[in-house]
Amino acid sequence: MKKIITVSREFGSGGRELGKRLADYLGLSYFDSEIAEEMSKQTNLDMDYLSGKLERGVAHYPATFASSFSRISSASNSAMLIAKQHKIIKDIAKINDCVIVGRGADAVLSEYAPFKIFVYADMPAKIERCKNRAPEGEKLTDKELEKKIKSIDKGRKSMYDIFSSHAWGEKSAYNLCINTTGLDIENIIPAVAGIVNAYFNGE
Amino acid sequence: MKKIITVSREFGSGGRELGKRLADYLGLSYFDSEIAEEMSKQTNLDMDYLSGKLERGVAHYPATFASSFSRISSASNSAMLIAKQHKIIKDIAKINDCVIVGRGADAVLSEYAPFKIFVYADMPAKIERCKNRAPEGEKLTDKELEKKIKSIDKGRKSMYDIFSSHAWGEKSAYNLCINTTGLDIENIIPAVAGIVNAYFNGE
Repeated sequence: MKKIITVSREFGSGGRELGKRLADYLGLSYFDSEIAEEMSKQTNLDMDYLSGKLERGVAHYPATFASSFSRISSASNSAMLIAKQHKIIKDIAKINDCVIVGRGADAVLSEYAPFKIFVYADMPAKIERCKNRAPEGEKLTDKELEKKIKSIDKGRKSMYDIFSSHAWGEKSAYNLCINTTGLDIENIIPAVAGIVNAYFNGE
Repeated sequence: MKKIITVSREFGSGGRELGKRLADYLGLSYFDSEIAEEMSKQTNLDMDYLSGKLERGVAHYPATFASSFSRISSASNSAMLIAKQHKIIKDIAKINDCVIVGRGADAVLSEYAPFKIFVYADMPAKIERCKNRAPEGEKLTDKELEKKIKSIDKGRKSMYDIFSSHAWGEKSAYNLCINTTGLDIENIIPAVAGIVNAYFNGE
């Protein structure tokens, strides 16, 4: 059977690192920013613009009467982009056993019964991780980082909840939820791979 | 450092099996019904009576005016039993590296920073498991089993939420949440042990 692993994650929890290392360990293809690049190629839209559209969630547009026309246009534009992204994710899954990080791939690919991982961490651990990996020149306080983390996750949740039948981060929708607080992600990869293999071998 | 692993679980998800196998694999002591036996010994109360008192939750007593006196007495009786159970759990943890299943041990033993596992499963998988392990003579329909599962978990949640600062089953409170649907529990024990060891070795 097809081996698809999806990794959903709280911002700053190390989900992307876990996904990448897991793909390497299992010898699977890995998709993350590759999806954004493909979107950009297909739409001729800038990646930053796309990321704003696809991570903020349609429901987040300001709800004033005066802005209603631009809201409708903006929402339909977002919906079109979401549909296109889903198509790309489905095309990827058709031809690859792979690990896909984010982008609601767990919901989009439910027909493949992927192994669905959710990665999270305590707030202080996420702040620490963000600090250690801040882009050069970014100097945010802990409070600012916490605000940024919460805002990004709010966008992910709002975007996800538009097209999924369950809420983002609700554990019942995942096969494994890993709290990375106090863990060195590299050290747990063989163990996570062990659970993934037990799942696919048991089917 | 002390190695304490707590296993909280939805009824029918295989949490007890996972806890027992994990303890065996790691060479740790295992506590589950042993705690109930010790409670029974210390209180001279019947184990079934204790189990009713300790799994139903204080808030579940009927809230009629006429029953208010018996409710107060019943609630204070339950509170006393909860306190006694917590004392037994703390005494166990003082002298044992161990796996403890249920009984809110994760909240009671927070000072030890235990590795906290939550085991859950999809409802059809839990019903199937309950059927396969039904006590002799018990012949419940799927609907009756689902009702039983929900009722037991409601009691666990209500009891747990009395003394814990977070809600029962809320993933942020656990280190690892495992959905056993589609998994053979025996097969994932080495992997779960790998994550547990990474946690304790990383501290």
